[in-house]
Amino acid sequence: MSLMTGEEYIESIRRLKMEVYMFGRRVEDPVEDPILRPSLNSVRMTYDLAQLAEYEDLMTAVAPETGERINRFTHIHRSAEDLVKKVKMQRLLGQQTAACFQRCVGMDAFNAVYSTSFEVDKKYGTSYHENFKKFMFDVQRRDLTVDGAMTDPKGDRSKAPHEQEDPDLYLRVVERRADGIVVRGAKAHQTGALNSHEVIIMPTIAMKPEDRDYAVSFAVPMNTPGLFMVIGRQSCDTRKLENGDIDVGNAEFGGVEALMVFDDVFVPNERIFLNGETEFAGMLVERFAGYHRQSYGGCKVGVGDVLIGAAAVAADYNGVPRASHIRDKLIEMTHLNETLYCCGIACSAEGHPTEAGSYIIDLLLANVCKQNVTRFPYEIARLAEDIAGGVVVTAPSEADLRDEKIGPYVEKYFKAAPGVSVENRLRILRLIENLCLGTAAVGYRTESLHGAGSPQAQRVMIARQGNLPMKKALAKKIARVAE
Amino acid sequence: MSLMTGEEYIESIRRLKMEVYMFGRRVEDPVEDPILRPSLNSVRMTYDLAQLAEYEDLMTAVAPETGERINRFTHIHRSAEDLVKKVKMQRLLGQQTAACFQRCVGMDAFNAVYSTSFEVDKKYGTSYHENFKKFMFDVQRRDLTVDGAMTDPKGDRSKAPHEQEDPDLYLRVVERRADGIVVRGAKAHQTGALNSHEVIIMPTIAMKPEDRDYAVSFAVPMNTPGLFMVIGRQSCDTRKLENGDIDVGNAEFGGVEALMVFDDVFVPNERIFLNGETEFAGMLVERFAGYHRQSYGGCKVGVGDVLIGAAAVAADYNGVPRASHIRDKLIEMTHLNETLYCCGIACSAEGHPTEAGSYIIDLLLANVCKQNVTRFPYEIARLAEDIAGGVVVTAPSEADLRDEKIGPYVEKYFKAAPGVSVENRLRILRLIENLCLGTAAVGYRTESLHGAGSPQAQRVMIARQGNLPMKKALAKKIARVAE
Amino acid sequence: MSLMTGEEYIESIRRLKMEVYMFGRRVEDPVEDPILRPSLNSVRMTYDLAQLAEYEDLMTAVAPETGERINRFTHIHRSAEDLVKKVKMQRLLGQQTAACFQRCVGMDAFNAVYSTSFEVDKKYGTSYHENFKKFMFDVQRRDLTVDGAMTDPKGDRSKAPHEQEDPDLYLRVVERRADGIVVRGAKAHQTGALNSHEVIIMPTIAMKPEDRDYAVSFAVPMNTPGLFMVIGRQSCDTRKLENGDIDVGNAEFGGVEALMVFDDVFVPNERIFLNGETEFAGMLVERFAGYHRQSYGGCKVGVGDVLIGAAAVAADYNGVPRASHIRDKLIEMTHLNETLYCCGIACSAEGHPTEAGSYIIDLLLANVCKQNVTRFPYEIARLAEDIAGGVVVTAPSEADLRDEKIGPYVEKYFKAAPGVSVENRLRILRLIENLCLGTAAVGYRTESLHGAGSPQAQRVMIARQGNLPMKKALAKKIARVAE
Amino acid sequence: MSLMTGEEYIESIRRLKMEVYMFGRRVEDPVEDPILRPSLNSVRMTYDLAQLAEYEDLMTAVAPETGERINRFTHIHRSAEDLVKKVKMQRLLGQQTAACFQRCVGMDAFNAVYSTSFEVDKKYGTSYHENFKKFMFDVQRRDLTVDGAMTDPKGDRSKAPHEQEDPDLYLRVVERRADGIVVRGAKAHQTGALNSHEVIIMPTIAMKPEDRDYAVSFAVPMNTPGLFMVIGRQSCDTRKLENGDIDVGNAEFGGVEALMVFDDVFVPNERIFLNGETEFAGMLVERFAGYHRQSYGGCKVGVGDVLIGAAAVAADYNGVPRASHIRDKLIEMTHLNETLYCCGIACSAEGHPTEAGSYIIDLLLANVCKQNVTRFPYEIARLAEDIAGGVVVTAPSEADLRDEKIGPYVEKYFKAAPGVSVENRLRILRLIENLCLGTAAVGYRTESLHGAGSPQAQRVMIARQGNLPMKKALAKKIARVAE
Repeated sequence: MSLMTGEEYIESIRRLKMEVYMFGRRVEDPVEDPILRPSLNSVRMTYDLAQLAEYEDLMTAVAPETGERINRFTHIHRSAEDLVKKVKMQRLLGQQTAACFQRCVGMDAFNAVYSTSFEVDKKYGTSYHENFKKFMFDVQRRDLTVDGAMTDPKGDRSKAPHEQEDPDLYLRVVERRADGIVVRGAKAHQTGALNSHEVIIMPTIAMKPEDRDYAVSFAVPMNTPGLFMVIGRQSCDTRKLENGDIDVGNAEFGGVEALMVFDDVFVPNERIFLNGETEFAGMLVERFAGYHRQSYGGCKVGVGDVLIGAAAVAADYNGVPRASHIRDKLIEMTHLNETLYCCGIACSAEGHPTEAGSYIIDLLLANVCKQNVTRFPYEIARLAEDIAGGVVVTAPSEADLRDEKIGPYVEKYFKAAPGVSVENRLRILRLIENLCLGTAAVGYRTESLHGAGSPQAQRVMIARQGNLPMKKALAKKIARVAE
Repeated sequence: MSLMTGEEYIESIRRLKMEVYMFGRRVEDPVEDPILRPSLNSVRMTYDLAQLAEYEDLMTAVAPETGERINRFTHIHRSAEDLVKKVKMQRLLGQQTAACFQRCVGMDAFNAVYSTSFEVDKKYGTSYHENFKKFMFDVQRRDLTVDGAMTDPKGDRSKAPHEQEDPDLYLRVVERRADGIVVRGAKAHQTGALNSHEVIIMPTIAMKPEDRDYAVSFAVPMNTPGLFMVIGRQSCDTRKLENGDIDVGNAEFGGVEALMVFDDVFVPNERIFLNGETEFAGMLVERFAGYHRQSYGGCKVGVGDVLIGAAAVAADYNGVPRASHIRDKLIEMTHLNETLYCCGIACSAEGHPTEAGSYIIDLLLANVCKQNVTRFPYEIARLAEDIAGGVVVTAPSEADLRDEKIGPYVEKYFKAAPGVSVENRLRILRLIENLCLGTAAVGYRTESLHGAGSPQAQRVMIARQGNLPMKKALAKKIARVAE
Repeated sequence: MSLMTGEEYIESIRRLKMEVYMFGRRVEDPVEDPILRPSLNSVRMTYDLAQLAEYEDLMTAVAPETGERINRFTHIHRSAEDLVKKVKMQRLLGQQTAACFQRCVGMDAFNAVYSTSFEVDKKYGTSYHENFKKFMFDVQRRDLTVDGAMTDPKGDRSKAPHEQEDPDLYLRVVERRADGIVVRGAKAHQTGALNSHEVIIMPTIAMKPEDRDYAVSFAVPMNTPGLFMVIGRQSCDTRKLENGDIDVGNAEFGGVEALMVFDDVFVPNERIFLNGETEFAGMLVERFAGYHRQSYGGCKVGVGDVLIGAAAVAADYNGVPRASHIRDKLIEMTHLNETLYCCGIACSAEGHPTEAGSYIIDLLLANVCKQNVTRFPYEIARLAEDIAGGVVVTAPSEADLRDEKIGPYVEKYFKAAPGVSVENRLRILRLIENLCLGTAAVGYRTESLHGAGSPQAQRVMIARQGNLPMKKALAKKIARVAE
Repeated sequence: MSLMTGEEYIESIRRLKMEVYMFGRRVEDPVEDPILRPSLNSVRMTYDLAQLAEYEDLMTAVAPETGERINRFTHIHRSAEDLVKKVKMQRLLGQQTAACFQRCVGMDAFNAVYSTSFEVDKKYGTSYHENFKKFMFDVQRRDLTVDGAMTDPKGDRSKAPHEQEDPDLYLRVVERRADGIVVRGAKAHQTGALNSHEVIIMPTIAMKPEDRDYAVSFAVPMNTPGLFMVIGRQSCDTRKLENGDIDVGNAEFGGVEALMVFDDVFVPNERIFLNGETEFAGMLVERFAGYHRQSYGGCKVGVGDVLIGAAAVAADYNGVPRASHIRDKLIEMTHLNETLYCCGIACSAEGHPTEAGSYIIDLLLANVCKQNVTRFPYEIARLAEDIAGGVVVTAPSEADLRDEKIGPYVEKYFKAAPGVSVENRLRILRLIENLCLGTAAVGYRTESLHGAGSPQAQRVMIARQGNLPMKKALAKKIARVAE
């Protein structure tokens, strides 16, 4: 059976007993930790929806090698249509969680490693692609969540990996054995690692021969000895420790990032997908980044849908839904959000096959997609705060609302449109706060900037893919320039 | 034979001897008029490229009813792939002409009338769809260029058609005969009418029963008695009357708009596609506008490619191609231009079948596409002027360059990067001027704003198609609002 | 003696023993509450700097009536130069606190009431201006901090005050006695009320005769019986309850907002500045809003300076200060920030005398100033997050850094530019987080939107003050239009 | 008498009989040339308004050395108030001409040379300042218009002046005589040179000792032997040769740019203000650029006022002045325009004295001012085109309107709001076309980008003046960073 239920997923993660640290302490049971649990719930949604007939077409796919129906997150894209469905699945999940559901990095790593390992093997006669396929079938069969880990700490940005004072600032092979390798280093900003069964490691930049020990890709289970995580703080993270479910804004779902440390971790040979073939590091980075930049044209659009909806409800609750400036701001939010969606769809529909037969997005358009994602969610959030009104940052706590003495004053003075309960008004305001300034803003704003590569990384790719020589030739022809 | 050569096209237009006025005089031979000819050359490109094997897939299609290969401009879209190819064909033509090639309005009218007439017939048992198909087969067989005319003068915007003081300010039926109708009125801003064999007339707004005489759609040849045109002025139009080919910027290609007057024109019954079924006026408008808003995600992107190329050449010629701010501006131009393309592709790839079996774009995304087109070309043009430098508006005339006494000073003092001829530098600067301020700016800037509907028209559609109730429900669920 | 020391100020506030609620409980000693204390420290800075000779010119003024040197926050502006100095003082304080220092609302209320009460008296022979001056002299002599409270809860926005279902949703007179009035209602979003000795109440909108009971302005001490506050939640507010001083970002300074409830509060006659003269409500609102919109061209610019500095340090610490795109983003941030400053200075330099002899800003330019403040801080914050890198939202807690086991890994893997301590890197990142997403984001972002009136309020004023008829006349003259 | 009438000014220019070339021919009488005359009329306005009592305060000043009332364009600023009045005068003239009135460059050159020459003399004991003052008194007494010429052709941008293949690509001293110097070279983009009596030459970049021959500043009359001009083409320039006064948009006023060639021109010693003191070239450039960047915060705002007015009239004439989106666009245009004005006012109000006693603007804010001018007019123009409607680029010619046969159709079908004549509607549309795409767009758009230095030049200055070290220190203090 290839599809786990949400409950089975939760239990499977619980059984892993990963090594997780937060606030200077080991988290004994990450699955039940109130700060971490919402992020688990978000991943769970990728399992829950896959159980529903109405979403079968989006949430699942049939693996061509086995004929089995698998979760689309473990699928290798076989057509442009697959790429389009990926984006639609992501929008759906963004809509249902209003958060980062984390499972995309693994899917994008899957597709990047699949096609790259094929080309490495073709050149070097290695068996990385076979290794990967074996791993892949296992993941598909067991319906695992896989993290994809790329970003190294990078230390001094002006130096190559092998030039760093501390050689571990890029993850590297520290020992080569007959049965495998031992690696040391860390991966930063790891979204969803905490909620994954496995992790695929990839290099973070194009490399030269001197960086041979750093050109390494492999997969290990998340409970491998020597692997542990330090959870990153999020704005408003500790609100989840409070009583009540209003002030958190989104009581059920969230995201999470961690520093993942590899403290001399052993990787057996059959789990290695790249090992020293430095000239393929760049290809792997470019493909993973490309797929992941496409992803943002789906997931963030879904979250944007919730924020637009929340702003519209706030306008209703404030009693001003028909003011022309409010309507115009909702239109602008929609326009910006759908522009992102257009980019996600377009880079997918323009996808093309790789040498391995899998499908890859149009790289130029995927980078254009992500570049817009570094801008528009900020403006959408600004407009949401505009529509919500200042009360979004000055409203009292749920404890005040519930208090015997203060509660009635809160009920009296936060009353707005007739028939709207103050509690509901506060709920919507807190959701907007959550997305614009709180835990979800980490995912909706800052991650939109830096996830899948910071803005400048996309600009470099746009320059590279923009085919300026062809455009110059067009202009010279029209202007009758003869050189 | 379904495909005319460019030369045959020119001759076929010449034979029509249309009634055209400009500067208060009748233009005796529009085909040879130096102000009008460049616009004819642009349309000709749609014939020339269709002759080339390398563009067969984009420029032509096979009509399913006849199995004949026809020009794509006369094709009814039968798949999302057809819609995508349309956009790619338009980008190609924008690249080749750096101008408006005009034939799109007819293609978009074709597709709008095709599906709408089907639905009218279905409701009323009329034979508009058959009428249209007969007309269509003729157009496909003879490879004609068809104009699509929608925009009425509209007079007092606060009044419906039948309420206007002058009832002719919307085109209307003034007489009904056994064999047809007589119409009076005008269509404004008619792009390419001048270079078309036929014109399809459509109403310009949704209508109520009182506007029955205005809910009319039909086709007539452009040389029908009573039909004449008054050419609109363009910035720098008369530069085309000067000697030389530098100062015009784009000596070969251009666009054109005209007021088209119907001074009691007879339309035979078999050429009528709508006649009084007022509730279908809105559908026809919405579909035509939708298709045409998609179009802008192709043609303007192609023109943008030329402008980006011209700016890059200008930077080369100025000797500063490596300055980081120049490179960054070229990246930004590319990014904006490709964002438009994403929108064009996405609304196409998300197309779906109509009741008549033809394919129509995703309306929301097509409106998002056009809304971006009302903004980005302006910023692309600003960046082009930035890169070009002030010399783009202060350079001397070609006559100065050619003059025996002044020429050497121009050669001396407009010298920039080593090895670049001053003439070539002027050529590229004039092309940029042409696109940013000159005749082509009419198409690249103002038409990008208002063509296929002014910005506010798209905003109304985005509001209507944005599904705010669904988004509100998503937000309420996440925020645990119970109403 | 007119100038208190910072320490004296703190003690004077402590003595007031205001009634303050937070998280459903009364705060016994607001002065020592860790969540509230930073906001007190910010106000304290207005006292501390006034003690320093180098800031005497900005921080203090000489009251013309008494010849006493007073804190500028209690001063009535007597010249355009005074208005300019106000803005410079605000920028200074923004720079020193990176937070809202709260004392401006009182200063702006002072100046609005001063000139408006003069004009009311002139029309009605009332003695509001004398009342106010008596109050003012007392404030100046005792160097008090005064809150200015305008925003009513407003309930159903489609109804006037007297039409509300609950008549208390705008603050109103519920009883008129020989010696004064009794008022009931609330004021929302009260910045700094908590740290003020006195509060000036003003109506929140222009009013008609039917709203007579709502057209009321007066001052009461903050510990007046019946007056209490409910503190609004801020993003990350409870981080201040944690150990350590890194994760809060700004350990010393902050802002605060509260709902201020008037539960049948008595106001003696000599403290009343408006009482039923409804036609002056609009003037008072417009003037207070005008002064307060000017203020944002000072304080937010100062906070922006800190954020720009923090982003520049983050770039240094990341080791990339010379990357051209980083430099360009710092330039853009500076450009936007100084544009705001230009607006603050310009509306001040163009100030003019009121009938009372005090100076008021140019209303059009003050509204333009604030309108820009609703936009640029968001873009500055986005650019700061861009420069800081994703680590700004994924860095571990101070507890992790300090932990014996985890600390060394944090030290190892968050090392960036050579010679930079990880602690310092985290400190700067947390400051950026604080300003972009944390407690200070409430002031720097959302308050920039809504404080002193939401964006649409400024647009209404810009429309009203923009003198379109004059501009139309200019255009008609140039175009030789004769009507 | 220090003030000429407009008529006297025209005659004084006519008498100069300058050597002017256009379209490869010498212009025999530039004053009567229909293409050039509008630019002369714009300068004339600086004389006409100075005759009117109501503008005396803005248009004139009293020279402190002589006590004579002089035109402000020949004045040395003696206070921040003078700087503010300069900006207001420029806005007034922009409003009256809707064009570039050209006399500012001379005023800005005056003030830059005045203070710089003082500092050169102080260091070197030269007598440039005396030379300049003698020249200045003469200009003030005779009320002359002076051009300020800075921009050299610059050839290969990667090379210093003395390194150019053709040494004349920066203007230079080719011969030194006892009584003066002989100079050769050219100045590009010379706004208003054609309509000036005198020209002040300045170097265009900071220089090193090797560029000694290029570090030269002086003044000569515009009819000096060896000095001639080649007029630059403008969009729509030849429309001024047509009959009628509608299609030109602005029949009376315009701007002009020319290449000014110095073909071995002799300059007597007493007219020299810098001659080889290379280290002062940068100061002169920076000051002139600073003053001139301030100027744009006045003149372009005035032109913007006309464009806003024209758009508002177009909305009236289209019959849609109350549509909320139209009103909102007019507000946005006003907001952007007044933001520019704020910058112009602020850099003036923050002016400070130079060593010579004259006043100079705040350099940072002046650069911020100009940087905004490189952006906002483009958006204002876009919004104007939006409001005007597509008819702004498709309307027929005046000849059509006047034609016996076609005219009635134009009258019939271009009728819009009741009671508005079609002629007036066309007049306003043509004015908008003129400012957005036509001759005036050269000044309002492209010159706003490049005049007084291209955008990147301002960014370099903003970086230099932005005091990043101070801002970093602020951030470190707040974040408690101890290094």
